[in-house]
Amino acid sequence: MVIILKQNADKNKIRQLEERLLQQNIKVRPTEGDKQTILGLIGDTTVVDIDTLLSLDIVENVKRIQEPYKAANRKFHPHDTVVRINDTVSVGGGSFTIIAGPCSVESVPQITGIAESVKKSGANILRGGAFKPRTSPYAFQGMRGEGLKLLSEAKKETGLPIISEIMEINQLPLFSDVDIIQVGARNMQNFELLKELGHQDKPILLKRGLANTIDELLMSAEYIMSGGNNNVILCERGIRTFETATRNTLDVSCIPVLKQLTHLPIIIDPSHATGKAALVPPMAYAATAAGADGIMVEVHNDPPHALCDGAQSITPETFDSLAKSLIELRKYAYSYNQ
Amino acid sequence: MVIILKQNADKNKIRQLEERLLQQNIKVRPTEGDKQTILGLIGDTTVVDIDTLLSLDIVENVKRIQEPYKAANRKFHPHDTVVRINDTVSVGGGSFTIIAGPCSVESVPQITGIAESVKKSGANILRGGAFKPRTSPYAFQGMRGEGLKLLSEAKKETGLPIISEIMEINQLPLFSDVDIIQVGARNMQNFELLKELGHQDKPILLKRGLANTIDELLMSAEYIMSGGNNNVILCERGIRTFETATRNTLDVSCIPVLKQLTHLPIIIDPSHATGKAALVPPMAYAATAAGADGIMVEVHNDPPHALCDGAQSITPETFDSLAKSLIELRKYAYSYNQ
Amino acid sequence: MVIILKQNADKNKIRQLEERLLQQNIKVRPTEGDKQTILGLIGDTTVVDIDTLLSLDIVENVKRIQEPYKAANRKFHPHDTVVRINDTVSVGGGSFTIIAGPCSVESVPQITGIAESVKKSGANILRGGAFKPRTSPYAFQGMRGEGLKLLSEAKKETGLPIISEIMEINQLPLFSDVDIIQVGARNMQNFELLKELGHQDKPILLKRGLANTIDELLMSAEYIMSGGNNNVILCERGIRTFETATRNTLDVSCIPVLKQLTHLPIIIDPSHATGKAALVPPMAYAATAAGADGIMVEVHNDPPHALCDGAQSITPETFDSLAKSLIELRKYAYSYNQ
Amino acid sequence: MVIILKQNADKNKIRQLEERLLQQNIKVRPTEGDKQTILGLIGDTTVVDIDTLLSLDIVENVKRIQEPYKAANRKFHPHDTVVRINDTVSVGGGSFTIIAGPCSVESVPQITGIAESVKKSGANILRGGAFKPRTSPYAFQGMRGEGLKLLSEAKKETGLPIISEIMEINQLPLFSDVDIIQVGARNMQNFELLKELGHQDKPILLKRGLANTIDELLMSAEYIMSGGNNNVILCERGIRTFETATRNTLDVSCIPVLKQLTHLPIIIDPSHATGKAALVPPMAYAATAAGADGIMVEVHNDPPHALCDGAQSITPETFDSLAKSLIELRKYAYSYNQ
Repeated sequence: MVIILKQNADKNKIRQLEERLLQQNIKVRPTEGDKQTILGLIGDTTVVDIDTLLSLDIVENVKRIQEPYKAANRKFHPHDTVVRINDTVSVGGGSFTIIAGPCSVESVPQITGIAESVKKSGANILRGGAFKPRTSPYAFQGMRGEGLKLLSEAKKETGLPIISEIMEINQLPLFSDVDIIQVGARNMQNFELLKELGHQDKPILLKRGLANTIDELLMSAEYIMSGGNNNVILCERGIRTFETATRNTLDVSCIPVLKQLTHLPIIIDPSHATGKAALVPPMAYAATAAGADGIMVEVHNDPPHALCDGAQSITPETFDSLAKSLIELRKYAYSYNQ
Repeated sequence: MVIILKQNADKNKIRQLEERLLQQNIKVRPTEGDKQTILGLIGDTTVVDIDTLLSLDIVENVKRIQEPYKAANRKFHPHDTVVRINDTVSVGGGSFTIIAGPCSVESVPQITGIAESVKKSGANILRGGAFKPRTSPYAFQGMRGEGLKLLSEAKKETGLPIISEIMEINQLPLFSDVDIIQVGARNMQNFELLKELGHQDKPILLKRGLANTIDELLMSAEYIMSGGNNNVILCERGIRTFETATRNTLDVSCIPVLKQLTHLPIIIDPSHATGKAALVPPMAYAATAAGADGIMVEVHNDPPHALCDGAQSITPETFDSLAKSLIELRKYAYSYNQ
Repeated sequence: MVIILKQNADKNKIRQLEERLLQQNIKVRPTEGDKQTILGLIGDTTVVDIDTLLSLDIVENVKRIQEPYKAANRKFHPHDTVVRINDTVSVGGGSFTIIAGPCSVESVPQITGIAESVKKSGANILRGGAFKPRTSPYAFQGMRGEGLKLLSEAKKETGLPIISEIMEINQLPLFSDVDIIQVGARNMQNFELLKELGHQDKPILLKRGLANTIDELLMSAEYIMSGGNNNVILCERGIRTFETATRNTLDVSCIPVLKQLTHLPIIIDPSHATGKAALVPPMAYAATAAGADGIMVEVHNDPPHALCDGAQSITPETFDSLAKSLIELRKYAYSYNQ
Repeated sequence: MVIILKQNADKNKIRQLEERLLQQNIKVRPTEGDKQTILGLIGDTTVVDIDTLLSLDIVENVKRIQEPYKAANRKFHPHDTVVRINDTVSVGGGSFTIIAGPCSVESVPQITGIAESVKKSGANILRGGAFKPRTSPYAFQGMRGEGLKLLSEAKKETGLPIISEIMEINQLPLFSDVDIIQVGARNMQNFELLKELGHQDKPILLKRGLANTIDELLMSAEYIMSGGNNNVILCERGIRTFETATRNTLDVSCIPVLKQLTHLPIIIDPSHATGKAALVPPMAYAATAAGADGIMVEVHNDPPHALCDGAQSITPETFDSLAKSLIELRKYAYSYNQ
């Protein structure tokens, strides 16, 4: 961290600041320029509150040099984290994971039918929404607890591990049979929920918020990890920009950026990012080619009658050819991204 | 709502669509153009799922004509909602409300001292954070339940109604003495929390999310109102843009836009929007001149030693002159905004 | 400027870098941390190319400490620039300037009629578009050279100085009678045009680009000023964000930010920012209250028949009451913003 | 186009509006809803000015149904445009084009050396900047006319067609030997320049502006095409978002979106989008997998001594392996994107 002092900052106040930082085990190295003095801070600055520094009248600005996350930081943990699901599936570390399933669980035949179909096509994990975050209170809110039971049925039938989204701490007991708990984009900074998930022993798939930076995504992962749960899978699902041709803008470049900054695996969700079924395959290819650890896509046997997000769901037929192409492409892509 | 059909859309499928919409009490009026046909939908389209329509292979696009919110819509409730707090303070309907206090409650002398000071300067409501949403798990997380008790002390001492932020449903019992429950920007689409607050009989101050549109803010208000709680106060606190000179960009124009769209009162928070104490007064003036129903600002007796957000806190002295100027400006501004 | 070196950076390469910087009269002061070394750069770093530094394999990151602009920087020119127009109007330095007129010049009676009307209401400068930047090639492109002649007519009739937008260097000779040359938002980084305008002896009104930061706006001002023309007036007209309720988002907070960073005057254009006539008055009030040096608004005697931007034009009647309110508000606002 | 009328809109004014539209050969079909009436417009609405409609007091809102571009619209020109460069290279229609070269032309050995190297690696076209748009007036502005001459030298030596950026109409005569004229992101809405290029008989590579939508990009292409020049190549180079980990956010999803909307070829520039050499290869792979018609990358033999944009330039060695991988990947990707 570097503190830029105001011109003619009071020397006594600078000394007081240095003493205060020393109490946090931070040493201070000043560099005097022609017009301004900067202070270099040496030590673990993750505990230093930038905001408090900025409120000092001798301080003009503060620049962070080190990342504010530790557990999620590749600098301190150079090897890829591999998240194991039920001893059957690995996420990260060279594996390529395909998560597929309907936006919402709707009935036993629906979820079981789709599960069998996507498994045959090559999916490793079954997704299915039970608690649905909908912008409108008048829209279908999901089958909730009942939906999780149906998802368990499909798991029993097919052996596929299951993932579903939690929206609130009190729902946790209902997730006992769920293999990966998903935190949705709108809850990425629901810090109370993250803390609670830090005490669970299940893998967490953490979706990036619509308006959250990569650094903030890693800080939210840090919330979970600092509680003791290191099995965090990151997921990019589009960020909000001025462009309206797609629902959100899929930030494909976050893949190589995250590969540098963190050891956690990164999964891409082209369905929510684009909001349009026709754009799902090309964006899934793009993400795979850029080095993603996997893909999460919405598949519905009858998109026009889906109870939510039909416009972005692909059919089992499209998924079948997509999954096969992705698996092939991945082999090729993995070699040139090494 | 208008459905734009694809060129050469199958006539049978169009008829099926019409029948399906009729079952939702929506009548369909087609207009045939040279190249394309559009369907105008007549009836209450808030229940129609655009996404499902978009997944139909005969549909090219869908445009919404009517706002998707009803309870919050000024069209159906032309008169300003006035939210009454403890029979002592009114928000909306011509009143001007000043909410002030520290980012975090830190101690009895701190919160009581600030409360007395801001009351004398003209504040109507005392704010104080107990549960603090912080980006970093290593930052001070607030005094939590204990903080709410200290806030109650300050209320007893000064008679000022109090407002504090809730982060999670299970914290609700601790808010029994809190007069207005605040939903923070990061929880604006925490729909489970909103639903629960819809069943409370306390006013809710709902902050706009960093990346949420005005329409989405109103849909979140609708979540609370559709549960039966009509005492919703909206709050703008800056949106995320590419500009980095301020922490966020205060969307001042949302004030006149919201005045057209809704009958709910709108409060502006220049402290979180700008992140810099020096920018708080000019932006408070701007918001007041544009017709806001009130202002919420952070005041701290000792910003450099504040446990959070010191950089954006103004001192009691600055607040005193700001509050007096705002009250005068408001008289003037209210007349020309009528 | 601070260079953050990679861990274990080669010592020889660091020495080479130091020598290279010394040749640019930049001294280097290293600070060795536990894990990383940073280099503080002392001297005039406006000439240092960050990009080149970033391409060095020993460099992890570079942070700028000083602003990259000099001529526009308030640090080096603490007093407000006052731009004088024709010895009759001053912009900046405590004056409040109202610029008004139609989006497009359409005919002699139209422009002269509006000019007389806005002058009577209190406008100081007449605006009128001759060369019109339109998104569509099929839209009306302005009366071009002919329009400038009509604008001159209106100047002769009313004595009001005139401002009009230039779109291309070759149009310069046609602007001989124009008092202020406007650079539109889309040309804010048309650097060749800026350089040419740096050699003119006319005031330039420089509009901020839709996606340009405040720093970039000042760098574009620097282009003009480094050519010798210091009479630059800045103009904010909304930035592009995800919000669609307004055409753009007026960044009102740029006003106090610019007042800190630069000595140049800042004018606000609420017409283009909002795109809606009803939002123009409240946003003009907001800008004035926040300390803007003036306002530029579109006024049309017959908005529904305007050849461009009718939706955002206010009528002469609305302008009359707006201008009078603004002048009163300014007196008040100026005192509390000091 | 659909006009949404205000509730209780005056019938006479509606009739006047209908008559006015009829004069533009637009027929009007009203649909009366419970509360509101909408008017469907039939005919060529590209000539209708939405803004004028919005200024009418009977109009609440206007929604566009048809795209506002014709020449660039795939609906009217279903077959891919193939742009031929010097009878040696084709862009679009199934070809895959690799454009490579330095940010700036610096000397004969530099440009010729790089040209020979990238040609050997598989590049089809040589890029080299002569006129450089730089944010700072104190930064290197390019070799200008001299640079174009050196670029011609390299063309003569290698036979590679050349592309370079124009910044201003008056520079046109200097581009006589340049095979493709590039319009930079900052000039995407420099409409006077676009009109002029519409009269040239050279291919134009049009870069998307940092804050421009896909629709606006196509409208700018339409400016060139409406002048008679149909040889337009689109280029995506990142859009401005809140994320700062990359210089801009590469909008990879624009590739499949543009493939639907237009017949023009689309090239991706991962160098300017990311600003970081290490991110160039993964993003080039992503773009290719998503179906781009080609890639434009910056290659420099000595990035740390490049006169501009060194941080984003890859070395000839990296380019060699990248180009070979891309050509292979393309074969694969092209088949599954059909």
